[in-house]
Amino acid sequence: MGEAAETLPAEPTAILEHPFLKILLAVYRADDSHGSWDGRKDEDLLADFVVTKEQRKLLPIIANPDPDVLWRVELFYKAVGLAAEKRIGIMVTPMMVMSGEGFGRVVLLAGRLVAYSRHLRDVHRFGYPSLERLATEGAIVVERVIETINDHPEVARA
Amino acid sequence: MGEAAETLPAEPTAILEHPFLKILLAVYRADDSHGSWDGRKDEDLLADFVVTKEQRKLLPIIANPDPDVLWRVELFYKAVGLAAEKRIGIMVTPMMVMSGEGFGRVVLLAGRLVAYSRHLRDVHRFGYPSLERLATEGAIVVERVIETINDHPEVARA
Repeated sequence: MGEAAETLPAEPTAILEHPFLKILLAVYRADDSHGSWDGRKDEDLLADFVVTKEQRKLLPIIANPDPDVLWRVELFYKAVGLAAEKRIGIMVTPMMVMSGEGFGRVVLLAGRLVAYSRHLRDVHRFGYPSLERLATEGAIVVERVIETINDHPEVARA
Repeated sequence: MGEAAETLPAEPTAILEHPFLKILLAVYRADDSHGSWDGRKDEDLLADFVVTKEQRKLLPIIANPDPDVLWRVELFYKAVGLAAEKRIGIMVTPMMVMSGEGFGRVVLLAGRLVAYSRHLRDVHRFGYPSLERLATEGAIVVERVIETINDHPEVARA
């Protein structure tokens, strides 16, 4: 049993210190009004954001996505908005609309500015191959939001 | 019977020529992929947009609004977007999100610009006291959208 434990991968604790994941976790736990995740570890909460290539293939993309996956997509963009807001002091709010069958659109709004816009498809399969990728992809969207706001600061403050 | 007919109000045909109502009807009929409204008159289609003060009071504002009323709110803002687009040649797209219990938000987006934003409440009671009011309120929102776009034309074209 001692040997078996030694072959397990190291716990992904370092990546949990990534600024984007810290905000994502904060947003996640803030949504837990019943305290039902109080006893759950950070890595357990983030586990559902990780979808490997093999897992993706197994996820059917017919019918409407599971409400849980829609909720995770929203959490991701809420975290992006909050991360941008923390950096530049302008409120950034996500709006997500699904038109059915996993298609939809998400925007991040800052004042009168559409700071980010993305058409969604195959939302059923939303996820990243690793926590590292989740963190870096989140951070990339945050940078893009901030760049767009910096291009039109007067509209973002309107 | 002849006398009773004479006391009925005149048919509201003149108001149906209002530019906003014509667009609203076009959007309405465009959503009818099964042709089930082909035999219905324009005034019948618009009747559900009219909610008198007395009717409003009777509409409960608990729980989630009827999907039909949400659909009418979306049609209204689709028509606003299309009316603005026809006037200024810039695509204006609505996005509506309901957070439950009749609360939500609708925005009209033109390029990178939030051309209109409104927080919704008591959506259960959406409607206007008359077709005239429906037409004038729609036209007012169209004007506001166009003004906002004219204030930031480069953002709306981005």
